[in-house]
Amino acid sequence: MSEIRPQNSPPHGTKSSRRPVRRRGARKKAAARRIRVIPLGGLGEIGKNMMALEYGDDIVVIDAGLMFPSEDILGVDILIPDFTYLLENREKVRGIVITHGHEDHIGALPYLLQSLRVPVYASKLSARLISVQLKQKGCKVKPDVHEVAAGERITLGSLSVEFFAVCHSIPDAMGLIVHTPLGTIVHTGDFKLDHTPVIGQPTDLHSLALLGTRQVLLLMSDSTYVELPGYTPSERTVRENLERIISDAPGRVIIATFSSLVARIQQVLEVAAKNKRNVLVTGRSMENIVKVASEAGYLTIPPKTLGNYDQIHNLPHDKVVILTTGTQGEPTSALVRMANREHQQVRIVPGDTVIMSATPIPGNDELVSRTIDNLFRLGANVVYGSLSRVHVHGHGSEEELRTILNLVRPKYFIPVHGEYRHLARHAKLAQQMGVSKANVFVLNNGDVLELSESGGKVIDKVPAEGMVASGPMTGALDPSMLRDRRLLSRDGVVVVTVAFSPDDGKPIGEPAIVSKGFVNTRNDGDMISGARMAVSAAIGEGRRTGKDRAELETKARDALSKYFYAKTHRKPVVIPVLTGL
Amino acid sequence: MSEIRPQNSPPHGTKSSRRPVRRRGARKKAAARRIRVIPLGGLGEIGKNMMALEYGDDIVVIDAGLMFPSEDILGVDILIPDFTYLLENREKVRGIVITHGHEDHIGALPYLLQSLRVPVYASKLSARLISVQLKQKGCKVKPDVHEVAAGERITLGSLSVEFFAVCHSIPDAMGLIVHTPLGTIVHTGDFKLDHTPVIGQPTDLHSLALLGTRQVLLLMSDSTYVELPGYTPSERTVRENLERIISDAPGRVIIATFSSLVARIQQVLEVAAKNKRNVLVTGRSMENIVKVASEAGYLTIPPKTLGNYDQIHNLPHDKVVILTTGTQGEPTSALVRMANREHQQVRIVPGDTVIMSATPIPGNDELVSRTIDNLFRLGANVVYGSLSRVHVHGHGSEEELRTILNLVRPKYFIPVHGEYRHLARHAKLAQQMGVSKANVFVLNNGDVLELSESGGKVIDKVPAEGMVASGPMTGALDPSMLRDRRLLSRDGVVVVTVAFSPDDGKPIGEPAIVSKGFVNTRNDGDMISGARMAVSAAIGEGRRTGKDRAELETKARDALSKYFYAKTHRKPVVIPVLTGL
Repeated sequence: MSEIRPQNSPPHGTKSSRRPVRRRGARKKAAARRIRVIPLGGLGEIGKNMMALEYGDDIVVIDAGLMFPSEDILGVDILIPDFTYLLENREKVRGIVITHGHEDHIGALPYLLQSLRVPVYASKLSARLISVQLKQKGCKVKPDVHEVAAGERITLGSLSVEFFAVCHSIPDAMGLIVHTPLGTIVHTGDFKLDHTPVIGQPTDLHSLALLGTRQVLLLMSDSTYVELPGYTPSERTVRENLERIISDAPGRVIIATFSSLVARIQQVLEVAAKNKRNVLVTGRSMENIVKVASEAGYLTIPPKTLGNYDQIHNLPHDKVVILTTGTQGEPTSALVRMANREHQQVRIVPGDTVIMSATPIPGNDELVSRTIDNLFRLGANVVYGSLSRVHVHGHGSEEELRTILNLVRPKYFIPVHGEYRHLARHAKLAQQMGVSKANVFVLNNGDVLELSESGGKVIDKVPAEGMVASGPMTGALDPSMLRDRRLLSRDGVVVVTVAFSPDDGKPIGEPAIVSKGFVNTRNDGDMISGARMAVSAAIGEGRRTGKDRAELETKARDALSKYFYAKTHRKPVVIPVLTGL
Repeated sequence: MSEIRPQNSPPHGTKSSRRPVRRRGARKKAAARRIRVIPLGGLGEIGKNMMALEYGDDIVVIDAGLMFPSEDILGVDILIPDFTYLLENREKVRGIVITHGHEDHIGALPYLLQSLRVPVYASKLSARLISVQLKQKGCKVKPDVHEVAAGERITLGSLSVEFFAVCHSIPDAMGLIVHTPLGTIVHTGDFKLDHTPVIGQPTDLHSLALLGTRQVLLLMSDSTYVELPGYTPSERTVRENLERIISDAPGRVIIATFSSLVARIQQVLEVAAKNKRNVLVTGRSMENIVKVASEAGYLTIPPKTLGNYDQIHNLPHDKVVILTTGTQGEPTSALVRMANREHQQVRIVPGDTVIMSATPIPGNDELVSRTIDNLFRLGANVVYGSLSRVHVHGHGSEEELRTILNLVRPKYFIPVHGEYRHLARHAKLAQQMGVSKANVFVLNNGDVLELSESGGKVIDKVPAEGMVASGPMTGALDPSMLRDRRLLSRDGVVVVTVAFSPDDGKPIGEPAIVSKGFVNTRNDGDMISGARMAVSAAIGEGRRTGKDRAELETKARDALSKYFYAKTHRKPVVIPVLTGL
């Protein structure tokens, strides 16, 4: 069918001018035989935070999360995907489907929904966490969120989306089976193959196996831990280590983990109850999740296990567990405040055992190390690191990725969720498993991949750099702003002010110099007076007008930069201010 | 012999006034039976960069290295130890003994020797690298460096220091046996127990075993890799993996490693020669070390193996190895320039194999990941990570540390070289091995530990924070400067200028506003004019004099901060400039 094409339908898509002109009716049909896959995630990991599937006039968005930029993007705490492509095609967007409730998959919704009023489909827990996000970000829009469960199927234009259960480090995570006229697409979402999960069902291998017996067009699979050999251990394996540590601990046990890791929280509560220890939950996000997850039925709190500060204070130390956040060394977290002796209620004492039930996310290592060092300094015994086996990952390792590839047996394969090297490795894995090399696509964010029955090709590039989200504002990342911040962060700033007389246009008195973050010049009067003289000499004593402003600013800046570099080998940002001209 | 002491030598130590007054002779005797151990290393790792041993009127300094501060110490690339204690006791310092030639053990010598003219004792390779350091830092002082070899013994006042061979990731590394009137002290330096090193001798276990049969007073041992179970593999194990990868590679092989890892360079040269590949050495530090190490006899270059760019360009790709630096993602390194397509001579093409023969130092992970991602993007196959086994560490793992503890059987134990958590773990190891808990000391930098026959105690604290070394200047880390840089790095700076008339003391015209690194306000005229109005309103229109300056500056700063925070939720540094007052 797809090879038969009428002659003169109008062009479709953005690149269609390259193709011969065709008739209208046929265009719909020709277009209908192509599907576009666009990772819109931005930053490092590909397709992690947002993707789009486009078929004819229908776009389905997968996730809308925020990104935590690396430290070199100075002063930017969060980034959100660039919505340009979606807004330019707003009439095509049929809905947003959410795989799970982590912030890097739902955190951009408060921004996206302000500009794009479309329905959102999410599991029960994800939907509740979306509400929390919208509230926290002060989003005024009333969102159209639909709760869906694994096994359900929704229709979004010519596409329909079926959800299937996956295990991940948050309950109620789902993968997607997208039925398209061209064939079936499977998107795993973030997943691991935990055969004995603590909360919820194992990843739904049966549905995937069944699909694998028919031809699946495309698999998109989580590449995060492709570098790890073997299998990621089950969440349940953590329990025996927690049990041993908690039952052996001579005093209090302070356990830090991710607040969204509800299964871990469940296990801590159970082990504490078994050891007749009371649990104090502290830290805002941890208190929130315990409330939300127990109300929604994900968390089962053993009776008489939770206590407040007053109750805890009156118990012997070996009857106490404190459950908190701070595994990433976040400066304002409860654990870090304890480590720095800044926590109001909890003072670390020798005999305390601290369990770091998480691994540092890359980039946080130094903060985490410092926290552990400080806890040791206060006399605590700190249990941390992979050898202590008090944490397991939420993503599948190499053999799990192979298992999925083998079950689904897709025609096309796109590795997603991971940095480029992970995708490259996952791509190789797929080829080893029999996917033809020409049918494996390692994409960058913004690549528009067009798939047809005869093959796939990147046909376009759309904006997918992150946008700065800061309070109520969003805006493009400004390279010159970042460059200036980088310079300011290294050597600070020096402001030099030269006043000109409005009467005769000559400089009045000496230039004034103020600095911030520059080397300490307070006790170095010689350096400051030398700097003033350098500027005065550069400016000269003659009569000036406003026309000379740019020239004089450059002269003052250059003279001061040169002077300070000679004296200190540093290059502060110099801002010249000329008044009276 | 050592117990016999003359009667009227001068008092020693800084804290002697705390002890009961004794007769002069007796006090000397008491003092003479005490030895002080002072880690002066600064930052994170304890005693890593510099330590002092003090006995009576004699101080021996162990190493004088520089530190690479974490990123949050903005604008500071290197720190050196605080020399205050040594300079205050300069007449006591008998010499500096160097364990090995890494920059974190010798890099502060150019600064220290400018203020303290004492002899330096170092192995042949270390001495050559010290010369390189002195030259690079433009040190004018002619240093008094003595070459010593393992097995030699030098006398430094009442102390004598014997050097013994250790294996580490640089040739010619040595540990120290310090003979004191109170007993023998063993300091391992950085070491591993490589029984089959590629260059030099294995760590000298015989000398340590012999010492262990007599009572050793104190052991100080490297704690860097105490967290790793088992044994660190021999340098030799890398070879078979390099051989396999290089002989299988379809095109060029680009190998990056540390320039000081001469044994690795040796193996690369040998494997290349065996595979009939020519080696191009590129990157300044790599070119330097190949020259220095081959001249000094540490590196043996197989005949006709080295080539230059012209020769390499004319060879088929499968006859080429390129040896370079850049394993830490350093932006100016040759490898990173290749990854970014900025290298003049080498353009990465599909078919190239890149071997990262090193692991990222904590803090560098993101830069390294980005480099690997970019190399994959250019089509290279990148071999990296612990599973590829193309790198081994230079420090001993848990079982090696146990071996040393068992051989030396010290009375006292001080874990050194590592962060606090490593020392705490190493301390526990020593207790498991039979060292009495009261005799194990986990110190912080600056702690003055005094040991006598009856026990040890931290009796004082001396300055040991790092000093900033920047070009020709050194100075204390200024917390307010760092705080300002932190603020500038987040939201930039805004300068607001208000000119007052010298005639009537009233503000002239509107305030002027200039910003750097702040959110982009260029296209937001409303925001800027609003900001001007906010400042004008705060300043008022009345007549002012110089006396009002501080008050007006505060008003202008507060008004502008408040205005921008309301508009942007950002807090730039605001610098008010008032002229004409």
